[in-house]
Amino acid sequence: MTSGSDSFDAGEFRKALGSFATGVTIITTRGADGAPVGLTANSFNSVSLNPPLVLWSLANTSMSLAAFRAAPYWAVHVLATDQEELSARFARRGESKFAGLDVETGIGEVPLLKGCSARFQCRTAFQYEGGDHVIFLGEVLTFDRNEAAPLVFHGGRYAHATRRDPLGAKPRSAFLEGSFGDDFLGYLLGRSHYRMFAQIRRHLEEAHLSDQEFYVLSALTLKRAMSVRDLDAGMAGVLDENSHRAIQSLVRHGLAREAAPEAGAAGAAGGPAYELTEAGREAALRVIAAAKAVESRMLERLGAGEAPVLKSLLNRLLGVIDPEAGALWGAADAGTKEPTA
Amino acid sequence: MTSGSDSFDAGEFRKALGSFATGVTIITTRGADGAPVGLTANSFNSVSLNPPLVLWSLANTSMSLAAFRAAPYWAVHVLATDQEELSARFARRGESKFAGLDVETGIGEVPLLKGCSARFQCRTAFQYEGGDHVIFLGEVLTFDRNEAAPLVFHGGRYAHATRRDPLGAKPRSAFLEGSFGDDFLGYLLGRSHYRMFAQIRRHLEEAHLSDQEFYVLSALTLKRAMSVRDLDAGMAGVLDENSHRAIQSLVRHGLAREAAPEAGAAGAAGGPAYELTEAGREAALRVIAAAKAVESRMLERLGAGEAPVLKSLLNRLLGVIDPEAGALWGAADAGTKEPTA
Repeated sequence: MTSGSDSFDAGEFRKALGSFATGVTIITTRGADGAPVGLTANSFNSVSLNPPLVLWSLANTSMSLAAFRAAPYWAVHVLATDQEELSARFARRGESKFAGLDVETGIGEVPLLKGCSARFQCRTAFQYEGGDHVIFLGEVLTFDRNEAAPLVFHGGRYAHATRRDPLGAKPRSAFLEGSFGDDFLGYLLGRSHYRMFAQIRRHLEEAHLSDQEFYVLSALTLKRAMSVRDLDAGMAGVLDENSHRAIQSLVRHGLAREAAPEAGAAGAAGGPAYELTEAGREAALRVIAAAKAVESRMLERLGAGEAPVLKSLLNRLLGVIDPEAGALWGAADAGTKEPTA
Repeated sequence: MTSGSDSFDAGEFRKALGSFATGVTIITTRGADGAPVGLTANSFNSVSLNPPLVLWSLANTSMSLAAFRAAPYWAVHVLATDQEELSARFARRGESKFAGLDVETGIGEVPLLKGCSARFQCRTAFQYEGGDHVIFLGEVLTFDRNEAAPLVFHGGRYAHATRRDPLGAKPRSAFLEGSFGDDFLGYLLGRSHYRMFAQIRRHLEEAHLSDQEFYVLSALTLKRAMSVRDLDAGMAGVLDENSHRAIQSLVRHGLAREAAPEAGAAGAAGGPAYELTEAGREAALRVIAAAKAVESRMLERLGAGEAPVLKSLLNRLLGVIDPEAGALWGAADAGTKEPTA
C-alpha cells in the first residue's frame, strides 16, 4: 500500500496503472503546416454511444500537443496484433513516422493507416484539462473495422489477447475422485501431438518414411552435417537414442550419407557426421511442405491471432520443462518498448 | 465503412469500439444512505501522473449515477483473471452485489474488494459531460497492487492476456530453405509432450507401468467400466489400438478385471467391459497424483495466468484437429456476459 499523492513513487504508480490492460492505438491528425502528425497512445476509451464520443489523453509535454490542440479532426487507429512495429515507430519521437507508409486520406485531410482492427474518424468535441495531460473528446463521424486480433499492452509490455473459455463450460465426468480430467496438460499435449502427427503420417507413408526417419531427416535440414551424438542430443526425449537405427535406414535408402570429414563440425568424438543426399533433401522438403500444409490448415481453423499465442506458450513451456531444449534451434530473448500516452 | 454519426448502426459501433481491448474494473463508493455501491466498468483509463489522475465514465441511465455524482470518494479495482464471476456480479443490476463478500473499508468509508490486480482510492476531481455518459476524473490518494494476471475484455467477451515474445527474438538457423523451425507446431507439441512425459515416466517405472498401461489405467478412472472397443475409441491416435495388450497386462498384475455384466454399459458388442480393482484404483491415483505434481511444478514456472490460456488453446486445437476427441471427456461451450460501462 502506497499512501499520499505527494509521496507517490512514480514507478510504482505506473506499474499499478499498467495492471489495467489496454489495446494500443495510433492517433493521427494533419498539422496546420499540412504535415501528418501521429503518435501511439493507450489512453483511448469509448465514452458515449449517442452521440458517439471517444476520448484519449495527451501529455502536456508532447511535441504533438500544439497540432492536436489546433486540429479540428483526428483519427484513432486500434492496432492489430501484427502492428507492433507500427506501434513502436509512432511511440518514438521523430519527424519521419509516416515515411514509406501507404497512407489514405480521411476527413479533414487526416492521414489514415491501413491494416488496423478499427479506425474512428473524429471531430474534436471538447478538450478537458487532466493534470499533466489534456483529454481529447472526439465525436466519431465515421468508422470502420475488421476482425483482426488486437495488439494489447499490459504490465509495461505488449501482450496477446486470446478468447477465454466460458466459466463452468466443462463439466468433469470422472467417476473416481482424483483422476485426470481433460484439462490435464499431459493429456492435452499427448493427444494434440498424436492427432496432428496422425495427419502428417499419411504423407510419411507415401514417402516410405518411419516416424524416426522423418525426425532425423528433418533435423538434418537444420545443420549441414550431424553426428549420431548430435542427433541424440538434439532429439533428446523424442528419439530416445534411436537416431543410430534411423540414420542407417536413411543411408540404406540413399537419403543420407556419411559427410566428408571437413564438412562435419562434430569430429571424431561424436562419431561420423551424416548429411543429406540430394534425394534426401528432396524427400525432406517434400514431407516438410506437406507437414506445414497440415499445420496451416489447423491454425487457420484455430482462428486469427491464436496461433502465435499457442506457439509462444509452448515455446515457453519447453523452456520451463527443459531449459536445454534449444539444442537444435536456440532461442533468444530481448526487452520491449512502451507506448507513450 | 459506416458514415455519418446520425446513421450509425449502434451494434456496429459497439463492435468497432470492442476491438479496443481493455482490462475490467469494478468501481465502488458509499451512497449518501451509507449503502455500498458498485459496478463493473471497462471505461477506466489513466490520465495524469502528476497530479495522479484516472478517469472512467458512467451512463446517464445508470441506477448508480446519483450515488457517484454525490460521492466525494470512490475506488477503482482492476480485476484479476480469476475474478470473472465478480465482474459478472457487479455488471448485473441488483441490490445485493456485496452480499457475502469479504469487504475492506477505504478512504471515505468506500468498500474495497479483495484479490484484485490493483486498487486506486480516489477523490472526485472533476465530472465532465460526455454525451450519454458522465466522465469521472479522480485524484488517486492511495493505491496498491499485486502481480495477478489481468481479466481482459475484447470483442464483447472476456479474454486472456498473455505475454508476447519480443519482435525478432528468434533467429532461424536452418541451412536448408524450407525446413522446419522451432515454430513448427508439430515440433512444439511433440517435444513438449515427450519432455513432460519423460518426467512422468519416472513415476510409472516406480509403479512398474508401461506408458500404455498408464494410459489405460487413467482412462479406467473416468468411467466405471470400459470395453476394449471403448478404450480404442477414446484413445484413438494415442494407443493405436493397443488397448487390448495393455488391459491384459493390467489384469495379469491384478490392477484391472472383467466387470460383472451389469456394471458395464458396453455390452456384448464391444466385448467384455473392464474395471479397476482396488489395487488398480490405488495405483492409478498414486501415479495420477505424481503426474499432476509434475504438471503443477511446470505450470507454476510458466507464470500466473498463462496455464489456463495454454490449456484453453490446446483444447481448441483438439477441437480443430479432431472434433471427435471428446470421446472420453466431452466439452461444452456457452455464451458470455458483457461488462457495463
